[in-house]
Amino acid sequence: MNLILLFPDDFVEGAGHEDGGIVRLTGRRCRHVQEIQRAEVGDELCVGRIGGRIGRGRVIRIDADLLEMEVRLEREPPAPLPVTLLLALPRPLVLKRVLLGATAMGVKKILLFNCNRVERSFWNSKVLREDALPVPLVLGLEQSVDTCMPEVLLRTRFKSLVEDELADLAAGTLRLVAHPEAARPCPREVEGRVTLVVGPEGGFVPYEIEQLEGCGFSPVALGERILRVESAVPVLLARLF
Amino acid sequence: MNLILLFPDDFVEGAGHEDGGIVRLTGRRCRHVQEIQRAEVGDELCVGRIGGRIGRGRVIRIDADLLEMEVRLEREPPAPLPVTLLLALPRPLVLKRVLLGATAMGVKKILLFNCNRVERSFWNSKVLREDALPVPLVLGLEQSVDTCMPEVLLRTRFKSLVEDELADLAAGTLRLVAHPEAARPCPREVEGRVTLVVGPEGGFVPYEIEQLEGCGFSPVALGERILRVESAVPVLLARLF
Repeated sequence: MNLILLFPDDFVEGAGHEDGGIVRLTGRRCRHVQEIQRAEVGDELCVGRIGGRIGRGRVIRIDADLLEMEVRLEREPPAPLPVTLLLALPRPLVLKRVLLGATAMGVKKILLFNCNRVERSFWNSKVLREDALPVPLVLGLEQSVDTCMPEVLLRTRFKSLVEDELADLAAGTLRLVAHPEAARPCPREVEGRVTLVVGPEGGFVPYEIEQLEGCGFSPVALGERILRVESAVPVLLARLF
Repeated sequence: MNLILLFPDDFVEGAGHEDGGIVRLTGRRCRHVQEIQRAEVGDELCVGRIGGRIGRGRVIRIDADLLEMEVRLEREPPAPLPVTLLLALPRPLVLKRVLLGATAMGVKKILLFNCNRVERSFWNSKVLREDALPVPLVLGLEQSVDTCMPEVLLRTRFKSLVEDELADLAAGTLRLVAHPEAARPCPREVEGRVTLVVGPEGGFVPYEIEQLEGCGFSPVALGERILRVESAVPVLLARLF
């Protein structure tokens, strides 16, 4: 936790002020500050307001499960990556790691979709529940010292995604689909916004690649080696930006 | 498992022939072929001989826990990445993932070292045991269709690593240490061999960075964001090569 993310309910004073106030924390963040960061009264910690600025919180009170800080918020969060990530729904453990990692790298729009080689049962995963889905996103922001939550969309029908939605979603962007069999290598340091599609373990079936190509997506590869989704996503983002 | 890795003991014929033979598999690989790949007699699967060539195995017999293949090995494995990765020992679960991911990306020399912010207990991890350490490496090769095992070295004393060994180890290479506070960004598409040092969660202490700089290592960063080790390693490798 390189940044303690603050939510409106944490503020006991100054909830509406963009430059700071007084916060009171309990639970996970309070324990982290006491047990991992071992902060004491007077120490300053890196904090940020969800969707807002980043700054310092000076500890003014510590109790068993209570922490109060006086917060000054001075700078804007880091710039987002200009990318929309479309990801075939991976298995739950991988999904958590990929959401955390992509959030930490600055992705702000993630669309999880179904296709032929996505196991049906993955859609019943607890990770996708409304109360669970923000957890890896918050961890990603805390890791990377950011405050702006990504938007995560779910699409259970590939055909309708491609036929009804993708053209608008990807309008005006460079459209790439990661495909180990592609002849073209993934480009480096591109300009402008990218829509990046990453398929399931086992890859897309040929018909799906054709559909994406029909929608203006170019298949690109990362060389001879086939990477797992949790490596492929950071590697692709690192090349592109 | 995009490649079934074959070891000398698997060969019932042609153990000494670099271009193929007959193999008999039991256990994990046999179950994978039957349950995940759902292969039948006559099917061809991607195989490779440890340290050697890659090719196809034609299934000639399947029993409950037995699989036989006629193997032809035709092409060389993919080129290794020209990098030595020096990694502050992470916690066990992260270590497994990083070893798998680095192996999949083609790293062939990994040195795990101790330093100030590495927890002592990590060195007692089962992952480091002689029988356990190859497991994530084999998974990484199977993932990335490679056959050449990385060498993994362990160094429990930072001071002696830096003072007695690092100059020789890094001779003639570009020397970089990933350091979130560095002003210089990590270079892209470098030429020649690199020695890349990645610190612990929480980073190096200033004295350690000074020691590495004294040894010719330049601190480089990946931008404003701080990434976890399991993201930072693939991102650094993707930038460098």
